Amino acid sequence: MPLQFASRLDNVETSAIRELFKLLGKPGIISFAGGFPDSAMFDVDGLREASAGALAEEPGGALQYGATEGYEPLRTQLAAFERHKGVAGVEPHHLIVTTGSQQALDLLGKTLVSPGDKVIVEGPTFLATIQCFRLYGADLVSAPIDADGVQVDRLEALIREHRPKFVYLIPTFGNPSGALLSLERRRRILALAVQYQVLIVEDDPYGDLYFGAAPPPSLLALSDQVPGSREWIAHCGSMSKVLSPGLRVGWLIAQPDLLARATMCKQFSDAHTSTFAQATAAQYLRSGRMPATLENVRRVYAERAQAMGDALQRELGDAIAFTQPQGGLFFWARLTGAGGAIRDAGEFARRAIEQGVAFVPGAPFYAKDPDRSSLRLSFATADVARIREGVQRLGQSLRG
Amino acid sequence: MPLQFASRLDNVETSAIRELFKLLGKPGIISFAGGFPDSAMFDVDGLREASAGALAEEPGGALQYGATEGYEPLRTQLAAFERHKGVAGVEPHHLIVTTGSQQALDLLGKTLVSPGDKVIVEGPTFLATIQCFRLYGADLVSAPIDADGVQVDRLEALIREHRPKFVYLIPTFGNPSGALLSLERRRRILALAVQYQVLIVEDDPYGDLYFGAAPPPSLLALSDQVPGSREWIAHCGSMSKVLSPGLRVGWLIAQPDLLARATMCKQFSDAHTSTFAQATAAQYLRSGRMPATLENVRRVYAERAQAMGDALQRELGDAIAFTQPQGGLFFWARLTGAGGAIRDAGEFARRAIEQGVAFVPGAPFYAKDPDRSSLRLSFATADVARIREGVQRLGQSLRG
Repeated sequence: MPLQFASRLDNVETSAIRELFKLLGKPGIISFAGGFPDSAMFDVDGLREASAGALAEEPGGALQYGATEGYEPLRTQLAAFERHKGVAGVEPHHLIVTTGSQQALDLLGKTLVSPGDKVIVEGPTFLATIQCFRLYGADLVSAPIDADGVQVDRLEALIREHRPKFVYLIPTFGNPSGALLSLERRRRILALAVQYQVLIVEDDPYGDLYFGAAPPPSLLALSDQVPGSREWIAHCGSMSKVLSPGLRVGWLIAQPDLLARATMCKQFSDAHTSTFAQATAAQYLRSGRMPATLENVRRVYAERAQAMGDALQRELGDAIAFTQPQGGLFFWARLTGAGGAIRDAGEFARRAIEQGVAFVPGAPFYAKDPDRSSLRLSFATADVARIREGVQRLGQSLRG
Repeated sequence: MPLQFASRLDNVETSAIRELFKLLGKPGIISFAGGFPDSAMFDVDGLREASAGALAEEPGGALQYGATEGYEPLRTQLAAFERHKGVAGVEPHHLIVTTGSQQALDLLGKTLVSPGDKVIVEGPTFLATIQCFRLYGADLVSAPIDADGVQVDRLEALIREHRPKFVYLIPTFGNPSGALLSLERRRRILALAVQYQVLIVEDDPYGDLYFGAAPPPSLLALSDQVPGSREWIAHCGSMSKVLSPGLRVGWLIAQPDLLARATMCKQFSDAHTSTFAQATAAQYLRSGRMPATLENVRRVYAERAQAMGDALQRELGDAIAFTQPQGGLFFWARLTGAGGAIRDAGEFARRAIEQGVAFVPGAPFYAKDPDRSSLRLSFATADVARIREGVQRLGQSLRG
């Protein structure tokens, strides 16, 4: 008799993801496929100093077991980081450190989702979120979005209909959508949270990666303006896109009761996040290098986003439709079929690979009813010249 | 309406653990309560060099997203580490790196346990394992142990009766028991695994911490001698007790199908273990410092274990019964009540705290039917003089 696996695994379908990753390994390829920041922009010197400093200053703290809630000096730095971004009154004990923001999502699933519970997500949304929540038995409902983020009227109707355990949103420069939820919609969503007493999970790994003016404040920051809404926001932050994904340092801010239970679940998931990584991140934040690091990544990604937008218009014209992103790492586009061009993004991806350029089709990002003409292009890891070359190859694939 | 939490949280009772931790914070106290290695023995210089080396050699690898299975140079080092300990034929792709061995347990629970499934554990066993498996809905069955580890006849009867999803054992210097499973019992357990086609989870964080002769080979290593048993062993390893818990580097070796599903679950739990910590651990193992580090911790813990055993006999006499541990971090003892002395370990712990010494009562380590006369004493973090002083205080508490 072979080993019997847990029934929860039946809820997860990862073949689409495996198919995506098979596309990425070919040598010589220009990749717009990853969701990675550019390794070349990591502040290696700053992190080396930070890690040496952590080991010199408090080797016990950096190498010993630590509190499940997180390394206290890092919690202090992260609370200050959030206050600096306009979240009033955040204290260290209002947040826990997580092993990347992926773990914050996992803990929310573990803490909140009983099998069969409804959870509303954006359509499209982050791939790993879909699978993460489904492993806890969530029944996902998909709320449509446009360039201003989730459509609030539709969201309200879905909340009424499904009474979900929570609503999961990436309001600022979403993955894969790149969309930016407008200020007006943010206010309306906070009002909905209070009205329907529904938890809103705000995943915010990209909010610091803006190219022009700063985006509207996070839902968490805005919650001060909507009485009663603060307790209905769970906010997930991350160092991955701005400093280094390899540290696996994220955080979760939520009301005390939820935070306590998420901490209990974390205790039995991985005891605590690497104190070595946490102490390094704390030293880095304390060193004062973060503002320059943020300026640098914003400047470089802004150039690349501009180059990709220009090239897409030039090379693909009206065969592709997209909104120029104002931050983040991604273009979200739709094949229009104009002039008889291809409309199936899966087929387009296969042709593109033959031309030496990779991206990911959009369908797997939908929990339900995929738009097969959609695709995601990352501008993060290729430089401007490679972006131009890659988009040229996309143009050839479209015509070829 | 307050937030509704997931039903799986109803299976977990953590007040006993919270009570334990409340005991630990008092100033001036001599603590035998922790499950920690001694920070003073961390090879800080070696780890500083290893982390600087990792950042110098391959900063991208150490700071970027990495494969969920683990950082390849670390998998290579860990496979060699296991082969060196007698596990024939282990290749890097036979293991995945986990965020401490706690995460290996969590992934096994997530991958294997459907609500209501039976899981056999030792009575007593590791606290966090009990809660970890219960969060996935496991119905735990407790198999009795003695100084030679789990009693195999009783284990076989429980396997027949309950047909468990798996059996969880800490065969070598168990926590809390300090027990060492005999070679003969190891062979019989491997035979049971084949006969009943039941998975044995071998948790092995302490196997390298032996004081005299090396212990019998791990179940994984011995599986070569019992045809068909290898596929029924899942082995959890850890750097926490020998190098540094703060790195959060553990690993899981299991048959390919189970390993693939555990990897999938890990992808949605934390994406991957900190590559910064993994690259540091890989450099450290490659540096050749590990054998000297192991010799050092073995020597120091052996002295402390001897000092504690001698002091317990001297100060508590026949009011306490224990087997001198041959490795690990713990004494497991029982209050005999001889001469009218106290028999309740919880009451003894409260009196001891008043005398300025802490330990943990044994009851919470039982999934079922706790032995309230049992207690766990760690000799890891106090030096020999403090151990003698602490045990003297225990004697006063007993008489007081």
